[in-house]
Amino acid sequence: MKKKFVFLFSEGNASMRELLGGKGANLCEMTRQNLPVPKGFIVSTEACSDFYLNNQTLSSLIEKQIFKALSKIEKQTGKIFGSVDNPLILSVRSGARISMPGMMDSILNLGLNDEIVRGFSKISNPRFAYDCYRRFIQMYSNVVEGIDIDEFEKVIDSIKKASKIKLDKDLSLNDLKLLIKEYKKIYKSFVGKPFPQNVHDLLINSVKAVFKSWNNNRAILYRKMNNIPDDWGTAVNVQCMVFGNLNEQSGTGVAFTRNPANGDNNIYGEYLMNAQGEDVVAGIRTPLPISQLKIQNESIYNEFVSYAKNLEKFYRDMQDMEFTIENNKLYILQTRNGKRTAKASLKIAVDLVSEGLINEKEAIDRLEPNKLDTILHPILDENILKNYEPIAVGLPASPGGCCGKIVFSPEKAIEFHEKGEKSVLVRLETSPEDIEGMTIAEGILTARGGMTSHAAVVARGLGTVCISGCEKIEFSKNFVKIGKETFCEGELISLDGNTGFVYKGEIPTIPAKLSGDFETIMNWCEKYKTIDVYANADTPQDAKTAFQFGAKGIGLCRTEHMFFEENRILAMREMILATSLKQREKALKKLLPFQQNDFLNIFKEMQGLPVTIRLLDPPLHEFLPKTQQEINELSSSLNISPENIQEIITKLHEFNPMMGHRGLRLAVTYPEIYEMQTKAIVLGAIEAKLKFHVDVKPEIMIPLSVDINEFLFVKSVIVKTIDKILKEKNQNIKFSIGTMIETPRAVIIADKLAKYCDFFSFGTNDLTQLTYAFSRDDAGKFLQDYYNKNIFKTDPFRIFDREGVGELLKIAIEKAKKVNPNIKIGVCGEHGGEENSIEFFNELGLNYVSCSPFRIPIARLTSSKLKSFFKK
Amino acid sequence: MKKKFVFLFSEGNASMRELLGGKGANLCEMTRQNLPVPKGFIVSTEACSDFYLNNQTLSSLIEKQIFKALSKIEKQTGKIFGSVDNPLILSVRSGARISMPGMMDSILNLGLNDEIVRGFSKISNPRFAYDCYRRFIQMYSNVVEGIDIDEFEKVIDSIKKASKIKLDKDLSLNDLKLLIKEYKKIYKSFVGKPFPQNVHDLLINSVKAVFKSWNNNRAILYRKMNNIPDDWGTAVNVQCMVFGNLNEQSGTGVAFTRNPANGDNNIYGEYLMNAQGEDVVAGIRTPLPISQLKIQNESIYNEFVSYAKNLEKFYRDMQDMEFTIENNKLYILQTRNGKRTAKASLKIAVDLVSEGLINEKEAIDRLEPNKLDTILHPILDENILKNYEPIAVGLPASPGGCCGKIVFSPEKAIEFHEKGEKSVLVRLETSPEDIEGMTIAEGILTARGGMTSHAAVVARGLGTVCISGCEKIEFSKNFVKIGKETFCEGELISLDGNTGFVYKGEIPTIPAKLSGDFETIMNWCEKYKTIDVYANADTPQDAKTAFQFGAKGIGLCRTEHMFFEENRILAMREMILATSLKQREKALKKLLPFQQNDFLNIFKEMQGLPVTIRLLDPPLHEFLPKTQQEINELSSSLNISPENIQEIITKLHEFNPMMGHRGLRLAVTYPEIYEMQTKAIVLGAIEAKLKFHVDVKPEIMIPLSVDINEFLFVKSVIVKTIDKILKEKNQNIKFSIGTMIETPRAVIIADKLAKYCDFFSFGTNDLTQLTYAFSRDDAGKFLQDYYNKNIFKTDPFRIFDREGVGELLKIAIEKAKKVNPNIKIGVCGEHGGEENSIEFFNELGLNYVSCSPFRIPIARLTSSKLKSFFKK
Repeated sequence: MKKKFVFLFSEGNASMRELLGGKGANLCEMTRQNLPVPKGFIVSTEACSDFYLNNQTLSSLIEKQIFKALSKIEKQTGKIFGSVDNPLILSVRSGARISMPGMMDSILNLGLNDEIVRGFSKISNPRFAYDCYRRFIQMYSNVVEGIDIDEFEKVIDSIKKASKIKLDKDLSLNDLKLLIKEYKKIYKSFVGKPFPQNVHDLLINSVKAVFKSWNNNRAILYRKMNNIPDDWGTAVNVQCMVFGNLNEQSGTGVAFTRNPANGDNNIYGEYLMNAQGEDVVAGIRTPLPISQLKIQNESIYNEFVSYAKNLEKFYRDMQDMEFTIENNKLYILQTRNGKRTAKASLKIAVDLVSEGLINEKEAIDRLEPNKLDTILHPILDENILKNYEPIAVGLPASPGGCCGKIVFSPEKAIEFHEKGEKSVLVRLETSPEDIEGMTIAEGILTARGGMTSHAAVVARGLGTVCISGCEKIEFSKNFVKIGKETFCEGELISLDGNTGFVYKGEIPTIPAKLSGDFETIMNWCEKYKTIDVYANADTPQDAKTAFQFGAKGIGLCRTEHMFFEENRILAMREMILATSLKQREKALKKLLPFQQNDFLNIFKEMQGLPVTIRLLDPPLHEFLPKTQQEINELSSSLNISPENIQEIITKLHEFNPMMGHRGLRLAVTYPEIYEMQTKAIVLGAIEAKLKFHVDVKPEIMIPLSVDINEFLFVKSVIVKTIDKILKEKNQNIKFSIGTMIETPRAVIIADKLAKYCDFFSFGTNDLTQLTYAFSRDDAGKFLQDYYNKNIFKTDPFRIFDREGVGELLKIAIEKAKKVNPNIKIGVCGEHGGEENSIEFFNELGLNYVSCSPFRIPIARLTSSKLKSFFKK
Repeated sequence: MKKKFVFLFSEGNASMRELLGGKGANLCEMTRQNLPVPKGFIVSTEACSDFYLNNQTLSSLIEKQIFKALSKIEKQTGKIFGSVDNPLILSVRSGARISMPGMMDSILNLGLNDEIVRGFSKISNPRFAYDCYRRFIQMYSNVVEGIDIDEFEKVIDSIKKASKIKLDKDLSLNDLKLLIKEYKKIYKSFVGKPFPQNVHDLLINSVKAVFKSWNNNRAILYRKMNNIPDDWGTAVNVQCMVFGNLNEQSGTGVAFTRNPANGDNNIYGEYLMNAQGEDVVAGIRTPLPISQLKIQNESIYNEFVSYAKNLEKFYRDMQDMEFTIENNKLYILQTRNGKRTAKASLKIAVDLVSEGLINEKEAIDRLEPNKLDTILHPILDENILKNYEPIAVGLPASPGGCCGKIVFSPEKAIEFHEKGEKSVLVRLETSPEDIEGMTIAEGILTARGGMTSHAAVVARGLGTVCISGCEKIEFSKNFVKIGKETFCEGELISLDGNTGFVYKGEIPTIPAKLSGDFETIMNWCEKYKTIDVYANADTPQDAKTAFQFGAKGIGLCRTEHMFFEENRILAMREMILATSLKQREKALKKLLPFQQNDFLNIFKEMQGLPVTIRLLDPPLHEFLPKTQQEINELSSSLNISPENIQEIITKLHEFNPMMGHRGLRLAVTYPEIYEMQTKAIVLGAIEAKLKFHVDVKPEIMIPLSVDINEFLFVKSVIVKTIDKILKEKNQNIKFSIGTMIETPRAVIIADKLAKYCDFFSFGTNDLTQLTYAFSRDDAGKFLQDYYNKNIFKTDPFRIFDREGVGELLKIAIEKAKKVNPNIKIGVCGEHGGEENSIEFFNELGLNYVSCSPFRIPIARLTSSKLKSFFKK
């Protein structure tokens, strides 16, 4: 039997998305459930693979199956494709296994030619029929032949100018006929042949063009960003057209079964009468809220709502639907699980569980940890906000607050990003070509488009603040007027994505408060968690946040940040400038009470959870003044000549400070520094125990070990100090001592180190730097070339490198566990809060990941989605 | 049976050096051969271990055995230890398994006390006897009780002043008696007890003190420098004294069976009449050449020569002997294999082989590769030298030429060294305490001492230039007068260790020419070689040297050095400052002919041996101007504003350039750079083939790989370029393509890389940096603390780290050979020329090491000493 490449909508169901694509499988499912879906068929993803395997040709078998399916549709509809009297008009749309909104191409109104349009105009109306035909020519020329859409827009503009009209819909029949004539001229001049008249060829060419669009640049980029395999391919949906633009009793809309911004359980959407679907999505006209439809046509509204509710129950998730009304008859064109904000995703998850549609673990598994970032990320500071008047208002399309310098193009956003500056992209509207710049910008502000416009959908997906449809924006050549204010590129603007308000200038942001749904989910996470989540927290304030977010301990408390505060840095500098042990000890003595108090309060905040304190790590020169003025100030404070200070700064300068005199190397040279820090930890722990009755669990972490003698030398300094003070104070507290594994050499000697360590913590930042020889401070400059040339897919500093650094982790773990099976092993470093990386660390059987306080919920959610390494 | 710890000289032989120490075993052997050796016995190295195991006490068993042996000696000599009338006087000397000259302590003239000295003066002469006694008190107090020798010297000086005499030997009997009284006062004031009178106690204390001296600081340092295990321990030789200072018919000397400076087959040595051995070695008086003895006392001279020749035959090596003449009777006190200069070692090896005493492989195995360094190292440039007049002349104690800044103390030499400055140590004489400074100085110049003085022996061992006994040196507080010239610390001086001439100012040095013996040895090496030796050679000149020294290929030709020449750097800078591909290609076009010509000439010099060319590696900013003046010059050359240039310099600045935009990363960003270089290689190879009929073997090496996609991207740039040009020129040359393995990630993905590589070259410099996170430019500052605190024994940049980096090499080799068993693997990096490291690389089964041209003979000699990895 011949392989089946083409399926009628009546031949599939929801489970067939791999073969039929998501859109196709859902169209089949709705057909199966007797929803009013226009008839059609699907050319499968396997046909797409076949197309690419055969050097981008469509096999005759597939062509045959297409036309066979088409003839069945003709029978079902009673219309004939290519007939002048009773023509069947089709749409040809892409549809991959998972939705890639706007990334691939579609062709609408296919089935018309110079002759058929005349017949079609008789059974519909002439203006409508010719408008369909000119839209088809435009779309086909663009998608199949790659002719720039602007070529056509220019012609429209000149005709509108000549006819003195403003809107496309005011074009007269004659205007449209003229337009078609001009369009065909453009086609001929580009392609060298007249516009094709054989509709069967047009269909085949369109199917092929959709297959080809799987490999256009923005689709490739989107797949890269979303880790979608390149070999999946897309299906093609060929479907009878229904016309929302047929007349004023027609229209088209997009709606969600729940509010995608906040999760409220109400139908939420927009529609436009006398319009085709692309008009809503492209955001060219600002549509009406769906609640308006209830007033305008209650029976259609109610019919829609009942379909919507049923589909939601069937798919057990919030649905994003497209519908068209043709002559007062409702058609459903698409349903899919709706994209939503993080906030909405939490509410919907909690609601679906309480409605009994899904269980807790399903709810967890559906949530995307990285998306939580949006609600964990800042909003505009309300205390400051209240002193500001908004300069304009738009639709609150993607929540959160942001502030940045205005840019008018995605290229400029990238340029600013490379300089380390935050930008806000201000555009008339956005298009899929802008995706890279949108990814980078802090916020997006558009003059056109609704809540479901391209800008809004993409921004919500990215977790980027977005205000769309802000009509009070006027663009000029080098500046933009927003409300009454004028802005040049680079001027500061603030957006409140929760309200849609736009502000002039810089409004600082603060972390968002967390809702009850969030807490509910986090409590579920606690039940299903695998690997533990610790926090990187350097201050009592951080520790407090970490504890509130449910950290199981502190995995990394960096002690150096404690020295940068104003009253401490002077003593620190005095210590560095000391020329004798005595002087150094004197300065260290001044630092002791500060450190002791920090540790006391961190122990107190963590309420008996483990606190891993890393002893001083950065090279000493980082603490020294940078400017002449600072040097002079220090000079007079410490009574050391500026020349002398300059000399020490010069002496301490390093060519590669990342690989310089830092970490435990400092304690090899100056054991008294670690002695002081250990003393502060021990005294802080004793005080926390005695004063606040905290069952302290201090873990002292030695950074940057490379050698066993080196480690033991430094460990003995620490142990001696602990023992001495505990004895003096007649106290008994258990101190864990361990090391960071952040050099390849530490990996190789992990067995030797493990013998003397209670714990290891992989410093994956430094280990990644050393494994790749990538300086984090410098690599950004050239990594872009690696992405552009498809050498790297992701940044190894963001997503942990399993292949290289991961192999080193495996070596270290195996060596360590061989000699010390109970050694506690964790990860501190940016990767500890990144989804994909956490999955790997859990697979390795690590005890915990440690991440910044605001990544803790993300890490906890990720942890609860994984399979436990330890068989319980 | 009780364990035997003490052995009479008649109870041992040459094979027992582990138990009896080198000196002891040889004394036994000479006794066995009936040479005139004063009677004595040895307390074994096992006794030393026992001493340390028992908390530095001497067991009663050992004491008993000592006194039992002593009584046998008394019987043999007819003298009685402790007798007043017929006293036995002993020396107590250290003697480890291998000679550690001057590092441990000895005590002479033991057996005297206040009473015995009176009896002794009767059977010898009073002045002599009291001189012996005062020497004993001084030595015992210093060695056993640690009283500073200066305490005693001060007393001598004041007595000499009072008596208005200059030399010790002019002290009268009364002076000596007064001296003894004062010495005993000093002893009492330090020790709190009178000077001991029980000679048996004195003997036991002396033995213990010698055992203790195994662990004095300079002995520990010497062992560390020479890789001598700390647990070997020393033996103690207790021997009857014979007195070279008895009268004018007595004397003492040191002689070599062949010339230790040039290897000539003549007795070579020095002696002093009426002196004890220490007077010769310490270099306080300048001795006479041994040829003088032939004139002075021919029969004794002939007797000595006959012993010497026999011992040389027996030991099959050049001997270094100590002798004493007492009242016209010759005694041999020591023989050992003599230390010698590298030049002498070659001549002696060749001569011994041609005399039939040893075979070629034995000759090779005896040579110390590192020592060859001296003859491969520079001599003063004769063309410049001829314009200089020497300002003084001394003994040419250690050959070679050097130039440096004068320092007066070893501490200062270390200080200069740390600043990266070369120093010449100028001293009255040197002592074992100076060892560290002597190691570091470029040269040593002493006012006193002969060819066998401390300074001379140590300098020859170190391969450091030394001129000793340069009498025209006068020291003042802050300066020194050499000849008629006055020098302050830091002023430049040049030494010619081959002639003994001293020059004022800086005379440049040039590489030494190699003698015929050297060639003979190198030819032998070729027969016995294991791992191949390639050269690091960047220029045709380097290639020529490498070829002459017998390199089997070039393992590393760094192309960047080619760009620093004056007429090239401008084009290079133009390339870096280019803002478009077109501009960059234009600048690269200018560089092409330079590179092509370099490669042509390197291929030509290497005459068909493999030439491994590494494509551009350093970050581009290294080529940019550093000073404002340079920037201005560049600005007017290239017609780019200085501000613009400054901006690019700022943009290219890197925080950690070692881990920055370098290596193949440059080619990811700018493939055109590697394209140009490949083109130059291919064109150079074709030209070498056609013009000079060289069977070229170009190997193109890609630096700094971390990823397989990255490598393949760059490799394809190279392959395409090669194929294109070969086709254009209608030529067929095989190009190997490989990569450096110098990042830990390259190690981990070695299997993936090996699939596409013809060869690997371990860049052990960078791999060591990344494995340790030690920046080579910065680590020097803190590594000193690691040595001081006994954490590191050696510098991992000098001696390859087997434990850490070595493990990575093993991983890479295993992975690579699994997928590509025939892959050629080598090492380029400083370690490729270091003895211990080469041994390891050979054990790993690598194909070659590559080192700087002047290390090639060292590496070849090392290679020929090793066991072959491949079973032949």
